[in-house]
Amino acid sequence: MRKQYSLIEQLKPEYDLFLPSISVDCVIFGFHSNQLRVLLLKPEHNKKWALPGGFVFKDEDVEDAATRVLQHRTQLKDIFLKQFHLFGNAKRTRQKHAKKLLKDSGIPDVENHWILQRFVTVGYYALVEYAKVHPKHDEISTECSWNDLKNLPDLIIDHNKIIEKALETLRQHLNYEPIGYNLLPEEFTMKDLQSIYETILGKKLDRRNFQRKILSYGILDKKEKHFSGGAHKAPFLYSFNKIKYFKALENGLEKEW
Amino acid sequence: MRKQYSLIEQLKPEYDLFLPSISVDCVIFGFHSNQLRVLLLKPEHNKKWALPGGFVFKDEDVEDAATRVLQHRTQLKDIFLKQFHLFGNAKRTRQKHAKKLLKDSGIPDVENHWILQRFVTVGYYALVEYAKVHPKHDEISTECSWNDLKNLPDLIIDHNKIIEKALETLRQHLNYEPIGYNLLPEEFTMKDLQSIYETILGKKLDRRNFQRKILSYGILDKKEKHFSGGAHKAPFLYSFNKIKYFKALENGLEKEW
Repeated sequence: MRKQYSLIEQLKPEYDLFLPSISVDCVIFGFHSNQLRVLLLKPEHNKKWALPGGFVFKDEDVEDAATRVLQHRTQLKDIFLKQFHLFGNAKRTRQKHAKKLLKDSGIPDVENHWILQRFVTVGYYALVEYAKVHPKHDEISTECSWNDLKNLPDLIIDHNKIIEKALETLRQHLNYEPIGYNLLPEEFTMKDLQSIYETILGKKLDRRNFQRKILSYGILDKKEKHFSGGAHKAPFLYSFNKIKYFKALENGLEKEW
Repeated sequence: MRKQYSLIEQLKPEYDLFLPSISVDCVIFGFHSNQLRVLLLKPEHNKKWALPGGFVFKDEDVEDAATRVLQHRTQLKDIFLKQFHLFGNAKRTRQKHAKKLLKDSGIPDVENHWILQRFVTVGYYALVEYAKVHPKHDEISTECSWNDLKNLPDLIIDHNKIIEKALETLRQHLNYEPIGYNLLPEEFTMKDLQSIYETILGKKLDRRNFQRKILSYGILDKKEKHFSGGAHKAPFLYSFNKIKYFKALENGLEKEW
């Protein structure tokens, strides 16, 4: 078991805990009120928001670091992260707020601190069920909250680009695997599912075309309508057929090759 | 313009040229004699073969490093590389041959040399036209040659896994974008194209199904048959319709969403 350090302790130069030059950042997508949202942290010393991210211990797999960092920074557990891209631009550097954090934390020799060196970062994303997660910020942040993808604030470094790239990855995946299972509750409307596709694709879709195509995959079960007072206009509910969904996930939506 | 160093010079500790912990490795695919092949280097001090790879200068984009390294190590120019995965396992380490290379090159304090530290590597792949490239090994290798994917030698570190992951990536891309244009000469047979798909998918495909599906994309032009002595059984030749091919590449093969 690794010795536990607070985030501030981890920054102390004498510990020399981390692999130099590499960080991880996590894009956590959730769906709520007809919108796709992303989880952001508000760093204590910065006006801008940030993706939950951190560093890789010298003896730790990068994959494990992403999971640990996400859990430590947001209290989210058991989230399946998927690597999607390494961001390796030479101009990526920490902003001034990192210096302020170091100074306020009593770290010596701030100017030469490793956190201010060049870092490349590995992007991970996850799709989670909004209602089931209860994010909480860490000791170097003041907030951890969901932000509407259509109305994101200015983020630190290249974090806006990282989210854009995560969306681009999802957009490609839409062509060969089903999406939505991890984002939606057990039962949902066709409109919910369409909204997710629309946000990822960045465009409006025709309602009837969407319904025809998504039903053609055979991964959805239509639920019985429960009529109750005034609900005669309630839309049909659907759920994913787990067996068919996971088969499609494994084999791809098209099986003709 | 960056000062030019030989590969041996780059290893001298006094230069301190590279970003620590990060390397790049390139998987170059070519198609020849009905086989998909991959370009490998034979390091001077090792029995095993290796992917062309190297390090990232401190002021260099990771993307640019991949292109530079490939060119320097194989003399291949103007190759469009695509990033596909970061390999971040904590157990990845250089093998003994690196020590031997350092010692033979007169590098001091070999045991603590940075090249023996932990590295994570960023994988890039490219599809190239076999006949048009003329690979040549660098000063720390004895050979640079094409190897049949179905019969790969044992490679250093996790390079076999890196190739497997590159293939897995191509397998996913087959579902939403056309493949083959960069691998094939101007004119080719349906069998050539099918062989590429079969190698990537790792299975035999039905000839008629394959032909029907690939033609349904409308990206191929059928060429006139040129009858010549004894060639009455020569197969039809095809070429990619460039306009339709690049449109499909941009929009994906399915446009129903």
